[in-house]
Amino acid sequence: MSPRTTGQIHIIGAGLLGTSVGLALRQLGVDVSISDASPANESLAIDFAAGRKLSEGDEVSLVVVCVPPDVTAKTVAQALVGFPNAVVTDVASVKLAVLEELVSGRTEISRYVGSHPMAGREKGGTLSGRADLFVGRPWVIAVEEGTDSVAALTVEQLALDLGSTPIRMTAAEHDHAVALISHTPQLISSLLAAQLSSADDKDLALSGQGLRDTTRIAASDPRLWLQILSANSGQLLPVLKSFSTDLASVIDSLEHVGSAGSLANLGKVLEAGNLGISRLPGKHGSTNTSYAQVVVMIDDKPGELARLLTEIGAAGLNVEDLNLDHASGAQVGLVELAVLPQIEEKLTQTLRANGWRLAG
Amino acid sequence: MSPRTTGQIHIIGAGLLGTSVGLALRQLGVDVSISDASPANESLAIDFAAGRKLSEGDEVSLVVVCVPPDVTAKTVAQALVGFPNAVVTDVASVKLAVLEELVSGRTEISRYVGSHPMAGREKGGTLSGRADLFVGRPWVIAVEEGTDSVAALTVEQLALDLGSTPIRMTAAEHDHAVALISHTPQLISSLLAAQLSSADDKDLALSGQGLRDTTRIAASDPRLWLQILSANSGQLLPVLKSFSTDLASVIDSLEHVGSAGSLANLGKVLEAGNLGISRLPGKHGSTNTSYAQVVVMIDDKPGELARLLTEIGAAGLNVEDLNLDHASGAQVGLVELAVLPQIEEKLTQTLRANGWRLAG
Repeated sequence: MSPRTTGQIHIIGAGLLGTSVGLALRQLGVDVSISDASPANESLAIDFAAGRKLSEGDEVSLVVVCVPPDVTAKTVAQALVGFPNAVVTDVASVKLAVLEELVSGRTEISRYVGSHPMAGREKGGTLSGRADLFVGRPWVIAVEEGTDSVAALTVEQLALDLGSTPIRMTAAEHDHAVALISHTPQLISSLLAAQLSSADDKDLALSGQGLRDTTRIAASDPRLWLQILSANSGQLLPVLKSFSTDLASVIDSLEHVGSAGSLANLGKVLEAGNLGISRLPGKHGSTNTSYAQVVVMIDDKPGELARLLTEIGAAGLNVEDLNLDHASGAQVGLVELAVLPQIEEKLTQTLRANGWRLAG
Repeated sequence: MSPRTTGQIHIIGAGLLGTSVGLALRQLGVDVSISDASPANESLAIDFAAGRKLSEGDEVSLVVVCVPPDVTAKTVAQALVGFPNAVVTDVASVKLAVLEELVSGRTEISRYVGSHPMAGREKGGTLSGRADLFVGRPWVIAVEEGTDSVAALTVEQLALDLGSTPIRMTAAEHDHAVALISHTPQLISSLLAAQLSSADDKDLALSGQGLRDTTRIAASDPRLWLQILSANSGQLLPVLKSFSTDLASVIDSLEHVGSAGSLANLGKVLEAGNLGISRLPGKHGSTNTSYAQVVVMIDDKPGELARLLTEIGAAGLNVEDLNLDHASGAQVGLVELAVLPQIEEKLTQTLRANGWRLAG
């Protein structure tokens, strides 16, 4: 496949995202240079084959700024000066704060188009970089009225080369969306996990998958999220206040469980939760897809899961989603298979016929 | 395997839990009868082989009450009268409210021992019943000072027969623990999902796995959870108020991001989240187990996942946890493999050598 991206691409910042962009472009045969404020990181990324060292006389056509949010605007401004013929983009998780800092610094930004790949890992750093990090993920291209269309197209083609789906929106629209679907869940998950920090071990021993799922992202890097959350406080605050108002009304209901209407109010919140989750886009971008769930018990030893899935594949049945859930204290695993409702019956029959134990 | 449970067991309530208890005991050859307030449900459960109809002259040794929380105490009291030689237990998610209602009704409860299997499904009802629902799950046996030791042992043996790990604690200790590890996550997840109910489709289109994980349990049955949450309001309120106080301090920090100390406060909450999640018991009951994560891209067609896992199994490598993540809009899947850190290197080498694409 020949890349849409042409010319030399320079990446500033050799963390997870910068390294991943470099690895992916190198696989496509693009000429990539990479630099980092830390000489050790820069050498590591070059050894890791994420790009070569920048040389004097290089003609860079696109600069991708992959540094932490709080130094993104400054780095973009420097890149616009240092690479006078290049389009410059960044990949920071907030877009309006970066744009406003550039504008207030009177930076000439006609060659700048911000962007944000909706990709990441709980683990950061150069060595966590992966060429396929962006495959299948949305990549927001932040366009404003008056954004240069060639510059926007250049960034869009980068996103396409890396396997992402480019989505155009303004910086403000982006920040509004991620406040709701990314920053609020992150903060709420952290607040929930924080309630566990001083819990008794015997209480935590009863933990199940629900608690695990709701707190998983609370393991993310506090320094990075501190920057993201504070940079997007304007968009984040209305969502958090709405959450807080709802929480206060639930607390009030629970303080007066005997009073008229208090249960109705609590029920309304639980039903709104049902509605909210039904609106999340499903697999393949479709909405409201509802899968049947089949749970299989497997012994916790190499090859068991493979044997299960081989038999399912041999029956010509497709699994839409799969989760392996280890029961606390047990040497067994519960494999939760999500399938289209019309094949649930055939799947359970096949599995039972093959001697698998179906669980709940 | 011969069952520990002896004599005739009678189950009252043919929903998910009652049916599952029946199916499991029948598999062990135990004589099980089952009844339900709804004659249709009762017939369905009997057809489903969860037990036989109760007959006059039956000598029941253990009654398992599996009805909704709000009618549990009343049903237990009736069972103690109706089965004068039987031990009676229940499986409701709250224990103190049931006990207090029995005590305030002056019921003679020497033959009653409450319990709570930490098992369930988002889907309820008779036909969701599974013999293996309780395998590997903790099962709380609620014992108080003065609880009859033979009665407690009878319920404990039921839990063991069903594959659970019995854990003894008082009703108050149980309610305190589940308020933190089950009821709070449920309510917070519902509140979070509720914020999505009126969101724009274009905002939701950017949703990723983090939002999906934090809101999954918000799909649970509102009627059931309304009963559970209101019955445990006394234990739940302190946790929710602590959450609310932390949320208010975060909102205050975000409203004053420029002020001294505001970022430090926000950072403290994020770090407390890191600490909280590190305290969750890991697989096999161990604490603080930290796995390496390897992410593999697979085509979304039958047999691909099986082929991957067959190759991993053939290399003698064990996968500790597995999650299949479908990227939004894509026809590919990301398989997240969690493995012991010492085998990560060998796993990635094996997969790359076999031509798999490793992603982030």
